[in-house]
Amino acid sequence: MQLDASWFTEIAPGEGIAMSLKGARRLHAERTPYQQIEIYETETFGRLMAIDGCVMLTDRDNFVYHEMLAHPALFTHPAPRDVLIIGGGDCGTLREVLKHADIGTLIQAEIDERVTRLAEQYFPELCQANHDPRARFYFGDGIQWVKEAATASLDVILIDSTDPAGPAAGLFAAAFYKECRRVLRPGGLIAQQSESPLLYAHIIKNMHAEFRQAGFAEVRTLTFPQATYPSGWWSATLAGEHGKLADFRRGDAEHKAFPTLYYDAAMHAAAFALPPFLRETLAR
Amino acid sequence: MQLDASWFTEIAPGEGIAMSLKGARRLHAERTPYQQIEIYETETFGRLMAIDGCVMLTDRDNFVYHEMLAHPALFTHPAPRDVLIIGGGDCGTLREVLKHADIGTLIQAEIDERVTRLAEQYFPELCQANHDPRARFYFGDGIQWVKEAATASLDVILIDSTDPAGPAAGLFAAAFYKECRRVLRPGGLIAQQSESPLLYAHIIKNMHAEFRQAGFAEVRTLTFPQATYPSGWWSATLAGEHGKLADFRRGDAEHKAFPTLYYDAAMHAAAFALPPFLRETLAR
Repeated sequence: MQLDASWFTEIAPGEGIAMSLKGARRLHAERTPYQQIEIYETETFGRLMAIDGCVMLTDRDNFVYHEMLAHPALFTHPAPRDVLIIGGGDCGTLREVLKHADIGTLIQAEIDERVTRLAEQYFPELCQANHDPRARFYFGDGIQWVKEAATASLDVILIDSTDPAGPAAGLFAAAFYKECRRVLRPGGLIAQQSESPLLYAHIIKNMHAEFRQAGFAEVRTLTFPQATYPSGWWSATLAGEHGKLADFRRGDAEHKAFPTLYYDAAMHAAAFALPPFLRETLAR
Repeated sequence: MQLDASWFTEIAPGEGIAMSLKGARRLHAERTPYQQIEIYETETFGRLMAIDGCVMLTDRDNFVYHEMLAHPALFTHPAPRDVLIIGGGDCGTLREVLKHADIGTLIQAEIDERVTRLAEQYFPELCQANHDPRARFYFGDGIQWVKEAATASLDVILIDSTDPAGPAAGLFAAAFYKECRRVLRPGGLIAQQSESPLLYAHIIKNMHAEFRQAGFAEVRTLTFPQATYPSGWWSATLAGEHGKLADFRRGDAEHKAFPTLYYDAAMHAAAFALPPFLRETLAR
């Protein structure tokens, strides 16, 4: 079976697996100083944003990723108030964070303002919270932002970046994690998207090592399905200054005042169960 | 990005999503009285068997499916002794079942003997247990086999079939489930592959209804990643005569005497956590 030119296809570099969506009509394309951004309308997954040919999100399945990057970290921290998102330009993670009533300020440091402007235009439902008075937008280098941030000024850092290549490579390194530790208050934690457990277990393993090198006491990975990312299986990795990542505010998660489609207290606990092959890779 | 003719592509019918594997060199193709079977060698997922254009398995990721179809059911039943597999011609599920030392007899009813003969040739590691004296092979219609089977003669039935269309359609219906109930001993249970929770939640919902109509007291679905099946996320559904599917022999699973790559006691418990969107679809 061969696909005609109306399919959008993403090939996972070096992995020999590809995912395609039917009837992708290109609505927009531009080259920014950082990357190539494209927007498509697809037949069955709604709208699609791609950066440098990689799917960032589709209407149909982005809820899993955004919920699983935001809520496990926020319900693990005992009282998250000030949050930083690095990347996250499509604003889906920001929307999830601001569902938590106790958040005081949310700063989003996205290097490419065009990602956010295009999200506002083509994914308005992800940008519903952009005018929330708690949200502030910084368009520039997240690594630099963290370097200049005050010590012990944040509770949670969410790293919602592209793959560890190009502009995002520095976001997967101990030097950066050390700066993050400095700006976190005691008990603070990081959650970072950490790629496919099937295809890129070595990246997750490396992240664990870098987090530990940066002084984080505990590092734990959770997994979730993500149909439009390579292999359909994805992960996020949490790193905590003080450990205790296995505990979370289960009662608060069970009685949260906002709806979610994928996340809930039971899914939170379940997502941290790792299959033996992955546990062995991480322990090696 | 367009894929050249060296990629094997499966399009999920009606779902507008496709999965492709690189450098697929066809080793074998034949049309049997039942279906078209093809074997490929791929660059990064090892060998691939396709039936009527749909991936049945690859070397690289079949472990998840086979473990999650076999072990949750076998560790849920209090003392499984006699097991029937319907379908399962590649013998991967059979191999997992026979890892359990207490199994007395395992009958595999596969409609198409050629699937098993080709698995023996191209996937020898899946067929390692085929000469186990506990294994018996029946090549013919599984529905008919169940109709003729003695009442209360089996403990567990595993339905490892193709999608609910063509020869497998009758395997997703209350009339067949009723016959299964008849041949199960008290406390018996069924586990059946039940498609993608993202793409085919309506099929899972329908299976629950059919199982209940057939008199099963409890029906529960578990999910797992499966990179080479549509959407990369798959499920199995368990139906129990007496309910109690939430309990399982956790201690036995924790101390099992055989290795697994995806399944263990923690993954067993975690796999049954269902996201809110799916719970709501099933409850509607």
